[in-house]
Amino acid sequence: MPELRRGPTSGRWVIVAPERAKRPTDFEKRGSGLEEKKPGNCPFCAGNEALTPPEVQREEAPNGWHVRVVPNKFAALESYESLGREAVEGFYDRMNGVGAHEVVIETPDHFKEIPDLPEDQVKRIVDTYIARLQALQQNQMFRYVLLFKNHGKEAGASLLHPHSQIIATPIVPQEVRNSLNIARAYYERKERCLFCDVMLAEIRSGERVVEEDDGYVVWAPYDARFPFELVLYPKTHSHDFTSLDDDQRWGLARILRRTLQRLTLLLGDIPYNFVLKTTPNPIPRPGKPGYWTTLPYDYHWRIAIMPRLTRVAGFEWGTGFYINPMPPEQAAGYLREVKLTDA
Amino acid sequence: MPELRRGPTSGRWVIVAPERAKRPTDFEKRGSGLEEKKPGNCPFCAGNEALTPPEVQREEAPNGWHVRVVPNKFAALESYESLGREAVEGFYDRMNGVGAHEVVIETPDHFKEIPDLPEDQVKRIVDTYIARLQALQQNQMFRYVLLFKNHGKEAGASLLHPHSQIIATPIVPQEVRNSLNIARAYYERKERCLFCDVMLAEIRSGERVVEEDDGYVVWAPYDARFPFELVLYPKTHSHDFTSLDDDQRWGLARILRRTLQRLTLLLGDIPYNFVLKTTPNPIPRPGKPGYWTTLPYDYHWRIAIMPRLTRVAGFEWGTGFYINPMPPEQAAGYLREVKLTDA
Repeated sequence: MPELRRGPTSGRWVIVAPERAKRPTDFEKRGSGLEEKKPGNCPFCAGNEALTPPEVQREEAPNGWHVRVVPNKFAALESYESLGREAVEGFYDRMNGVGAHEVVIETPDHFKEIPDLPEDQVKRIVDTYIARLQALQQNQMFRYVLLFKNHGKEAGASLLHPHSQIIATPIVPQEVRNSLNIARAYYERKERCLFCDVMLAEIRSGERVVEEDDGYVVWAPYDARFPFELVLYPKTHSHDFTSLDDDQRWGLARILRRTLQRLTLLLGDIPYNFVLKTTPNPIPRPGKPGYWTTLPYDYHWRIAIMPRLTRVAGFEWGTGFYINPMPPEQAAGYLREVKLTDA
Repeated sequence: MPELRRGPTSGRWVIVAPERAKRPTDFEKRGSGLEEKKPGNCPFCAGNEALTPPEVQREEAPNGWHVRVVPNKFAALESYESLGREAVEGFYDRMNGVGAHEVVIETPDHFKEIPDLPEDQVKRIVDTYIARLQALQQNQMFRYVLLFKNHGKEAGASLLHPHSQIIATPIVPQEVRNSLNIARAYYERKERCLFCDVMLAEIRSGERVVEEDDGYVVWAPYDARFPFELVLYPKTHSHDFTSLDDDQRWGLARILRRTLQRLTLLLGDIPYNFVLKTTPNPIPRPGKPGYWTTLPYDYHWRIAIMPRLTRVAGFEWGTGFYINPMPPEQAAGYLREVKLTDA
């Protein structure tokens, strides 16, 4: 029977409708949708560096590079001299599309996604993420830096070559602000981090946990919107992704790679998105150089992984709630059973 | 240059990035994606009535029917004896998937969408919408009734035969609640309807208006998330879609049909969603039969029309804000210029 569920971190209701449930193999096979694109004139391949704008960062390799970061040629946001905030026609807010939009080219190899790469290469990608986030947080016009990956056409990618994207925005996005407000209200009442509490409850129950190690835990959230949606939490409380030390980065590389391997082994080359949720950028206190407004210590960085096996339709747009045919308890069960080849 | 925009009714920021702009003919042609399905064993075609669950409503025609309403065979929500509200593991809210899920079969003709139907048939569809909403509002377990249409595979439809859907939910969805709260706060400050104010400003400016007649106005919202996104407002203030009199229904049939004709003539058979936004169901006052809690007179019913020419990706999921490559002023310009054949 269908069930309505709401989790404490989003406040969002989800319909879990197992009447519509399918086994993992029953979902429409949609692939990455980009198999037709061959290397050769791929702008992200080794040898074609001249096809991208000049790189902003590069991880050197003996005969070239391991990871490159370049500005997005079709940037959603870009540099301006000022924010240009204004009211339009009395009702509308506008500001310049201030920001940055970068592409992290995860490997010179056109066909090797994170599950296929060696662990040290995934560690280099994590290092690059953190370096770029730290660099972009220096710009005081930016309020948030978003890191995400679109894999496959249905997930919004337009190139097959493995890459992720970073967008710096001059506002804290509504979704992040909403989640911060919920976490802050909880902290005020309990003096505990909401995300830590949820994580410990999930570990204790185990029903939705896919994998847990010393540093991280991956589970299918109680209020998953999508089949096989997962969250990856660091077990050590931290609001700030960029604060990871070297060990924690190795740990993240390992579990992120293993998690994407599980999804790929179970479901094939499906389209998916992953999105980092982390603290907004620190804001300098006016008139007090070197002082910063309080950072949200009640927040908890994490990564949300959203396979795109179902389509979002009018119902979801109109209401903000989602129909998920795959109960997260079942999804976690399937994913736990996957045998990792080099585990 | 890209621009960030926020409108007062949603509170949501949108990136309008005309660097990525295209002419209407430049968008990837995705069609409805369901052309391959032929009538014959289509469960919604005349002659195949036995293939659907028994109908809950029917508009008779001389030799059959004009419009049928049947329960959705794969219902997202269904009947229960109680709401079954409970807390799960201390953190999570759950309730039974109480509700109703119906399909409005808009015509016996497999290939005639609203733009192709005669005006009196579209009027019958509007009448049917209102009758079903009124019927479902009687169930005191339901808090909201959502009416929407998914046209085309990319918009979430799984059948080609023209149909729309109605879902009754036991909660007021977050998106609706958010918009109600914003409208109420505005009304408290100004004693005017926010939506009326925005509509009058749009009519006065005219820059984003596609069509206006005695009863309705259609425009591309300032903070459109999608290329060619439109809103359709009744010019007479009303929070309640089901309160339309006969003249107003004829007016709605006319302008809805004309608006979808414009989109089709300009862009071809594209996938799209439309969603009705209307007041939540009245709630009876406990202990006072016949008395109802105040209805939201500060609300304004309307229809949002969302063509699906771009894909929603990680950025949108992660932040709740959207990148729109087509400035609504340009979209409105293109749509205004469309010559309607039987205008």
